[in-house]
Amino acid sequence: MASTSISSRSLLDLLGQWRDAGPSYEALADRIRLLVIDGRLLSGVRLPAERELAAQLEVSRTTVTAAYQRLRDQGFAVSRQGSGTRTVIPGTAPTSPAPPTGLLDFTKAALPAPSMMSDAVRRASESLTPLLGDSGYDTIGQPALRAAIARRYTERGLPTDPDEVLVTVGAQQGITLIGRALVSRGDRVLIEVPTYPHAYDALSAAGARLVTAPVSVDSLDGWDVDAFESVVRRTSPAVAYVMPDFQNPTGRSMTASVRRRILDAAAAQGTVVIADETPGELDIDRPETLPPLAAVAGGAQVITLGSASKTMWGGLRVGWVRAERSVIRRLHAVRVNMDLGTPVLDQLVVAELLEDYGRVLAERRGALRAGRDATERVIAEAFPDWVVPHVHGGLALWVNIGAPVSSQLALAARSEGLLVTAGPRFGVDGAFERFLRIPITYAESDVERAVSALQRAWPAAARHPLPEAGLLAAVV
Amino acid sequence: MASTSISSRSLLDLLGQWRDAGPSYEALADRIRLLVIDGRLLSGVRLPAERELAAQLEVSRTTVTAAYQRLRDQGFAVSRQGSGTRTVIPGTAPTSPAPPTGLLDFTKAALPAPSMMSDAVRRASESLTPLLGDSGYDTIGQPALRAAIARRYTERGLPTDPDEVLVTVGAQQGITLIGRALVSRGDRVLIEVPTYPHAYDALSAAGARLVTAPVSVDSLDGWDVDAFESVVRRTSPAVAYVMPDFQNPTGRSMTASVRRRILDAAAAQGTVVIADETPGELDIDRPETLPPLAAVAGGAQVITLGSASKTMWGGLRVGWVRAERSVIRRLHAVRVNMDLGTPVLDQLVVAELLEDYGRVLAERRGALRAGRDATERVIAEAFPDWVVPHVHGGLALWVNIGAPVSSQLALAARSEGLLVTAGPRFGVDGAFERFLRIPITYAESDVERAVSALQRAWPAAARHPLPEAGLLAAVV
Repeated sequence: MASTSISSRSLLDLLGQWRDAGPSYEALADRIRLLVIDGRLLSGVRLPAERELAAQLEVSRTTVTAAYQRLRDQGFAVSRQGSGTRTVIPGTAPTSPAPPTGLLDFTKAALPAPSMMSDAVRRASESLTPLLGDSGYDTIGQPALRAAIARRYTERGLPTDPDEVLVTVGAQQGITLIGRALVSRGDRVLIEVPTYPHAYDALSAAGARLVTAPVSVDSLDGWDVDAFESVVRRTSPAVAYVMPDFQNPTGRSMTASVRRRILDAAAAQGTVVIADETPGELDIDRPETLPPLAAVAGGAQVITLGSASKTMWGGLRVGWVRAERSVIRRLHAVRVNMDLGTPVLDQLVVAELLEDYGRVLAERRGALRAGRDATERVIAEAFPDWVVPHVHGGLALWVNIGAPVSSQLALAARSEGLLVTAGPRFGVDGAFERFLRIPITYAESDVERAVSALQRAWPAAARHPLPEAGLLAAVV
Repeated sequence: MASTSISSRSLLDLLGQWRDAGPSYEALADRIRLLVIDGRLLSGVRLPAERELAAQLEVSRTTVTAAYQRLRDQGFAVSRQGSGTRTVIPGTAPTSPAPPTGLLDFTKAALPAPSMMSDAVRRASESLTPLLGDSGYDTIGQPALRAAIARRYTERGLPTDPDEVLVTVGAQQGITLIGRALVSRGDRVLIEVPTYPHAYDALSAAGARLVTAPVSVDSLDGWDVDAFESVVRRTSPAVAYVMPDFQNPTGRSMTASVRRRILDAAAAQGTVVIADETPGELDIDRPETLPPLAAVAGGAQVITLGSASKTMWGGLRVGWVRAERSVIRRLHAVRVNMDLGTPVLDQLVVAELLEDYGRVLAERRGALRAGRDATERVIAEAFPDWVVPHVHGGLALWVNIGAPVSSQLALAARSEGLLVTAGPRFGVDGAFERFLRIPITYAESDVERAVSALQRAWPAAARHPLPEAGLLAAVV
């Protein structure tokens, strides 16, 4: 984690109107906690010295001291001699302080396991036996799985050889490997905004300077390709991370023409395109399904990320990278110094599920269709003013809640039994306070409970809108 | 990966007498390759500009150009416009360039799976079923597994509650989490030398300045406790990473008195002790088995690392951290931003094996005893001059080969069909060129093949001793 800090001036800006009717230290602590929960203040950031913040906020130092103490007590800050007070995001796990029971977790956009899972595990157990004589450390991937993944890409229009596939511990490790292998400190890396937060975390950790290109739910096309081209032309990023299908969180998919222009722009600047296609096959009713981005790469170099977590089950920690052999070699060279391999049994389970993949996908598409329809309907009834852009697949809706209160709403919802991720977590510097990501992976009864929690939380949240961040400049 | 570079002067020092009878560019490339293979030149280090290195080595620039090209062709270097030529370690996997077939892999000190594995997998499959309705992302650990791990610690004399346990993707992730949560950039971190390379990689990556304390095979006690105390006193490290039982690679175990003094020294400076006890239960015939280090912590804060990889199977990617609840909360807070969880099925398998742990350990101890006895005997016959310190458990021998040729020997052995890790990989700056780590996890026939490969490799290796690094200063 980079050792970053926030100045008292910047914190003041983020705090906005933080005072309320209660004691000042509580109000201050609660506001900082909210910023942490929603990713506007990252974990590990050093807070200003107490004296300095007190001066900036025009409160007594005792107020700040008590606020920091409250944050520590609640698990949102830690202090260590000589390095001040840092933010921390406590987990939602049983070890977290005073976890409310029966929380509905809408921070995860993920389905339960498919019904074929138990059988796949049984068959995988059998194919495990001959492998038990080895040490088990597998940093490249089981041959059966690499072959199955390659076959699937080939079927989808992207001819692939097994040795163009590296199996990783989830797609997240793939992003981390690419960051380490292809990004040098100070290199520019393009990300979409909003985007998948773990991706920009991993790319930032690699030392990248992030530049951004917007994806919007306002237009059907989603991508602002003019902006994308302009950013790529002006900044020549080493890498551009994009999610061409059912983009997380917007749910938008690139049209053929968007794909062409983005790839051409990248090719012209030698920018490597990372196509995160983990939700790529989660169609519900998309009118046109396109082949993987790498199939139409043209002059661009495209590295494809895939994963079993979304299409099969999150409990299987198996992802993969598909790239040309020389890239696979580089990624593997980095990987062997970082990790001891991908779980073998999980890999065999994924290989088995790929054998029966048509049925697996059909089942998941059915569940997503039901989830989407229910979620759209229930939200429309409860919050007729919210703008809910229709999606043709993927795992979530990117809902415009009409006021910059997403973080407040998420915080208030927690007290109502619902965990949900506020919009700013998908941005880079506090934008998207008017948006909320709502998964479509839940059964109607859960959706009703969740939306009812949002209804109860809404009045308190709407009372304290956060200062709105300006639209992100295309180049940061 | 930190963007580091090596000066032509430092490279000159490392190269030593690199010229041989063949073409200069080949000799230069081969010597650099050897440095990379053995970890004396890390992966990702920028090599000097061609012109500069040519001047330093007093060769033509063409020679350096050709040498770098040869390194690239062999997969040991990559070049990218604007960022020069960087070292890379190609994997030993099928995607690596021209992999020799039938290589015997002695870089891994790990046993095959125990015979109870298939049954454990079958039972785990059954307990998986009720969990399939959830999203599967598990960043804290399955309750059944946390309880089983806590029970095992309690049995061994360290009373432990399930919520003092965080389950991770191998012990390696535990080290990474501790580095991120407890180490700030520039903090000093104490490591043993020699030590487990992935540990210092992870702690370096957290921005630590490493200080070192020696562990030696020359004395029975191993640890130079005077040096340890002095380093701790002078540098007040934030964290000290130690392996109290069957230390990797030396195989030494701390006596009760060493434990007491190390813990007291840490307590006096507020240094958190990370006790990596992954090999802790791999006794063969240790006269006295002590409880986990944390059981006698006294005033010291001890965080314990454990793993299923060594005691059960490397194909199970399950490790854990045992610490007080507040530390577990901090680690978990870091973890949720980094990773999506530990494979669920693997966790259930480990929980099952812990139910039958006495038999699992007995089987492994038998295999290690046979492996140790065979390895000691075969080496003594083939290399009577090598000093092979007897071990009472663990997974490897730390053999003094009598001349500073470990890296050369490892390189030559590769051509003879044997992969083995040279001594310097366990040091921090090129020390241990006189040592070779040889696992005791192989059957006698494999040991014979391996040692015979070393015999064939020896004459070529002995011809080109590497310049010896001085003994490491206690403080770096």
